[in-house]
Amino acid sequence: MSVQAIAWSPTGAVRIIDQRALPEARLERDLEGAEAVAEAIRTLQVRGAPLIGIAAAMGLVAGTRELRGAPREQFLARLGQLVELLAAARPTAVNLRWALDRMAAVAAHLPGAGSAIWERLHAEATAIWEEDRAMCRRIGEAGLPLVPDGAKVLTHCNAGALATGGIGTALAPIYLAHEAGRTLHIFVDETRPVLQGARLTAWELSHAGIRCTLIADAAAGSLMRQAKVDLVLVGADRIAVNGDFANKIGTYPLAVLARHHGVPFYCAAPSSTIDASLQDGAVAALNPAFDVTPARYVTGYITDRGLRKPPFGGN
Amino acid sequence: MSVQAIAWSPTGAVRIIDQRALPEARLERDLEGAEAVAEAIRTLQVRGAPLIGIAAAMGLVAGTRELRGAPREQFLARLGQLVELLAAARPTAVNLRWALDRMAAVAAHLPGAGSAIWERLHAEATAIWEEDRAMCRRIGEAGLPLVPDGAKVLTHCNAGALATGGIGTALAPIYLAHEAGRTLHIFVDETRPVLQGARLTAWELSHAGIRCTLIADAAAGSLMRQAKVDLVLVGADRIAVNGDFANKIGTYPLAVLARHHGVPFYCAAPSSTIDASLQDGAVAALNPAFDVTPARYVTGYITDRGLRKPPFGGN
Repeated sequence: MSVQAIAWSPTGAVRIIDQRALPEARLERDLEGAEAVAEAIRTLQVRGAPLIGIAAAMGLVAGTRELRGAPREQFLARLGQLVELLAAARPTAVNLRWALDRMAAVAAHLPGAGSAIWERLHAEATAIWEEDRAMCRRIGEAGLPLVPDGAKVLTHCNAGALATGGIGTALAPIYLAHEAGRTLHIFVDETRPVLQGARLTAWELSHAGIRCTLIADAAAGSLMRQAKVDLVLVGADRIAVNGDFANKIGTYPLAVLARHHGVPFYCAAPSSTIDASLQDGAVAALNPAFDVTPARYVTGYITDRGLRKPPFGGN
Repeated sequence: MSVQAIAWSPTGAVRIIDQRALPEARLERDLEGAEAVAEAIRTLQVRGAPLIGIAAAMGLVAGTRELRGAPREQFLARLGQLVELLAAARPTAVNLRWALDRMAAVAAHLPGAGSAIWERLHAEATAIWEEDRAMCRRIGEAGLPLVPDGAKVLTHCNAGALATGGIGTALAPIYLAHEAGRTLHIFVDETRPVLQGARLTAWELSHAGIRCTLIADAAAGSLMRQAKVDLVLVGADRIAVNGDFANKIGTYPLAVLARHHGVPFYCAAPSSTIDASLQDGAVAALNPAFDVTPARYVTGYITDRGLRKPPFGGN
């Protein structure tokens, strides 16, 4: 059973696992308002593009609980302030802006006073979360045939339950294969410099009872050479139209090593990760926390729309 | 000017830089006897194959200072005890055993009492150190033409002044190029899991005034793809007859990435590192702290006997 990274608390606050405290402690926090959610995003208590969007949407709901009795204009004015506050918590997060815009549009188009709008926002935030859970599951189903019984899978960074509202993206096929009773072994890159693999991925896999071994990033090449890796599964932050994709630094060398050793290399991501405005990945390499993996190294893409083999073509 | 990792103290103790304290503090310790040297080797205050051998030889001398007035048999009996004590400090270190055997043989073959033997041992330990310094310099001269003005060099782990009695092995061509007034930029792999690059190599290069950038091991691939690396220079723990070589984990993926991007990849090591009993590197991959780089990935070997291009052939 995978960990659940976010939930409503019984009183309507946003309940999160403080990811800074992992793996030493599992610390749940109830974020009572939008300010607390913004702070949690800023300080990386909550991370992962899908999870940030969900948390922000839920934060708007938690943060307007006290305004349910307010007249429409007062409610919308305060909501607008909270949208800007949350958007500013991580200005580069596309998913965060998308979720906030969706919430704001719903509020603007619904007639009525604060209580009616609030009820609708609560439903909308829950829908954003539920859609993400379903999306993760579809990715998992698309990738499930790639992870047979006995599979040895290498992954990088954290594209798991702790990054989403559901069972993750790159880890989704792994969770479903485990659910199906398959025995797996996951090699987890520690993922320097921020150690998302060591702190988060190894923790969430162990929590779910899936066998894993933490490795130094630089050990992946030797493992492949010794035929100890059947498959590489990674997530993506952005996929260009031609299939080049940006992801955490260290993804690109894994792709080269996988190609060199004949190991299949799959990228798993929501189809919304495809950026129609980017023809290829040539411009996306300016941030040293990320690298770009050219499409020619990718065996396939696992999205909520199924498994897609190159050539990618962007649709 | 490179740092000097070892020296005689004014009173005849073995003066070392405690490498556990780097880079936060430069802490010099005077090791008064063989026990203290053995402890320093065990606890990684002193590391690097050549440096360990030198430290052990000097430790025998420091540890028998008080016995200079002793009769021959008493002196040799105590010397034998100290040889075993030091050899046990790191049983896998070939160079340590080699240096101790050389010291013991010199003592056994010299007639006379304690004082004469001690003088000879002092000269022998100093010779072992001086030979290592000269060996480093020859490696540096062999590799110097590979490091032109403006060169951007990537290195892994620490094969520098802190690993030897002189200017290192992989770093020796870099120090000589810097001495020659060439402007260089060195990318230093942090070298997980023990961080020898981050703690030692970056420190000793900065100490010498050589510009360097510390990178996550997983960032090397992107740098090569962006044509920011002209040359990879690494050391070797053991070189097989066919040119396969064992070195710190993470060396092999660098070799694959270098080949993939057309970046020259050089291994620098004393010619004594070649192990005539190993036909190839197939058996040497059992220790997960090390990996084996097949000879076919190596552009050339820089040894104290000069620069050698493959095929290697073992002589």
